[in-house]
Amino acid sequence: MKCSIFAPAHITGFFEIIENMDPVKKGSKGAGVALDKGVTTDMEIEDGSGVSVKINGKHDARNTSITYKTIDLIKKEFKLDEYFNNKRVVVKHELEVPLGAGFGTSAGCALGASMGIAKILNLPLTFNRAAAIAHLAEIEMQSGLGDVIAEVCGGITLRLKEGAPGVGSADKLILNGSEEDLFVISKTLGEIETSSIIGDPVYKAKINKTGRNLLSKLLENPDPCQFMKLSRRFSEETALMDPEVLELVEILEDETMGSSMAMLGKTAFAISKTPDTSVEGAIVSKIDSCGCRFV
Amino acid sequence: MKCSIFAPAHITGFFEIIENMDPVKKGSKGAGVALDKGVTTDMEIEDGSGVSVKINGKHDARNTSITYKTIDLIKKEFKLDEYFNNKRVVVKHELEVPLGAGFGTSAGCALGASMGIAKILNLPLTFNRAAAIAHLAEIEMQSGLGDVIAEVCGGITLRLKEGAPGVGSADKLILNGSEEDLFVISKTLGEIETSSIIGDPVYKAKINKTGRNLLSKLLENPDPCQFMKLSRRFSEETALMDPEVLELVEILEDETMGSSMAMLGKTAFAISKTPDTSVEGAIVSKIDSCGCRFV
Repeated sequence: MKCSIFAPAHITGFFEIIENMDPVKKGSKGAGVALDKGVTTDMEIEDGSGVSVKINGKHDARNTSITYKTIDLIKKEFKLDEYFNNKRVVVKHELEVPLGAGFGTSAGCALGASMGIAKILNLPLTFNRAAAIAHLAEIEMQSGLGDVIAEVCGGITLRLKEGAPGVGSADKLILNGSEEDLFVISKTLGEIETSSIIGDPVYKAKINKTGRNLLSKLLENPDPCQFMKLSRRFSEETALMDPEVLELVEILEDETMGSSMAMLGKTAFAISKTPDTSVEGAIVSKIDSCGCRFV
Repeated sequence: MKCSIFAPAHITGFFEIIENMDPVKKGSKGAGVALDKGVTTDMEIEDGSGVSVKINGKHDARNTSITYKTIDLIKKEFKLDEYFNNKRVVVKHELEVPLGAGFGTSAGCALGASMGIAKILNLPLTFNRAAAIAHLAEIEMQSGLGDVIAEVCGGITLRLKEGAPGVGSADKLILNGSEEDLFVISKTLGEIETSSIIGDPVYKAKINKTGRNLLSKLLENPDPCQFMKLSRRFSEETALMDPEVLELVEILEDETMGSSMAMLGKTAFAISKTPDTSVEGAIVSKIDSCGCRFV
């Protein structure tokens, strides 16, 4: 019993936090871009007991907590404690993008875990219901608000209604003509703890004041340049733009269709017609338009 | 200026008709399967005027009306009459499945037309909004109620809430283990005019009485065998099962995971672990899990 799941990385350009007492209805609205690099999760059931999670071949207490959380939610919902006393679930996440840098890797790990367990144990879950468990894990861990639904949708994603897949609503841009082969160029300078921003009332007020109007502006003119322009405006008006990231953003701005800071990571990103950039050590991807899937 | 769109064929197993004065909210709930064979639409803008539509290389007044309807809706919404006085849109649909036989080809043609025009003319439409125009065309022509949202979703599709993409809600089954490589086997004996069934009050009452409860039964046990079992029950309890189709359904039942009649076509279909069948001239496909996309 084995399976593999690919979840695209997802960079949010701008967003608005929407609170709700019900965690499947809590989330964010906003826009971002899904990459053809992301998280590939291999899952296997072996003899033994418990759960083992590795990221890029290593144990990593901090960054595997979202995976354990997701599996715990499923264990509780389906009363699987006894099953896991007699079987061992081995989860291996391979990441093509950095952790904690605004690429939605926690959502990718959560999706890999929930989709994998649903499939491998033949649980009575549909695709969206399995993905909703990944969203719940993200909300409980405060590691993300909207990456799960965006990674399920793919493309240059629009999160039109907050919440888990099947509860919220996502859409994507139609890329016109030569835009089909756009590149996403990104460069990471370090990590930002998502919870340190989305849990801070001052940042939250700024984010929501700025983010609220941008989605309708993107819907009026739904194209990649407008997405990048609004993302840049968001990063500056919220004062989330890091000065070091700004230096990279300004270099990328000259070379691409538009650039901004990934929400939330110490990462500059841009959408470009070419893979070329003067920024050393940049990650160059294409856009993933199919979304999270079994591979 | 050229583009290509693939829309998977979609066979509905069971459904319920939901009326609404607002055509984007009108549609059906139910379940079906999207095939990796379908409609590929090539679109091109040339000098000249008007719109030319061909199916498999031929003019076809009856089966191209959905495409003209879709383009008309877009022309009205974006006031494009003048544009089309000076430019000619050439639309070529290539179909890998039969017309009028329950494969959702009208929805595939409508999706090809709406996505193609949105892209080629750089209209301010998102993916779901362009798809919603295809749904509107289907409702106005009474050619389908739920194929558009199912063909956008892909997979063994669940239409949980009726309406256009972005208004209704779709989900899909997680296929377990060996089910990843399932085959869809179908054999067509002839056409059924969708409007002759969904416009008939007696059939409609039977469809809705039977269809209403089946979706929740599939959600309790979301797997391909259950989908086929409920589809078979629907085709018999509604008296939609054609006697000639029944003969094929019974042969396929013995050879596969389950079989039924396509809604709505004189077509038997089955989901199977192997591509082998004793039914001569059967169409053998796999399941498409990504949904309608630019190619």
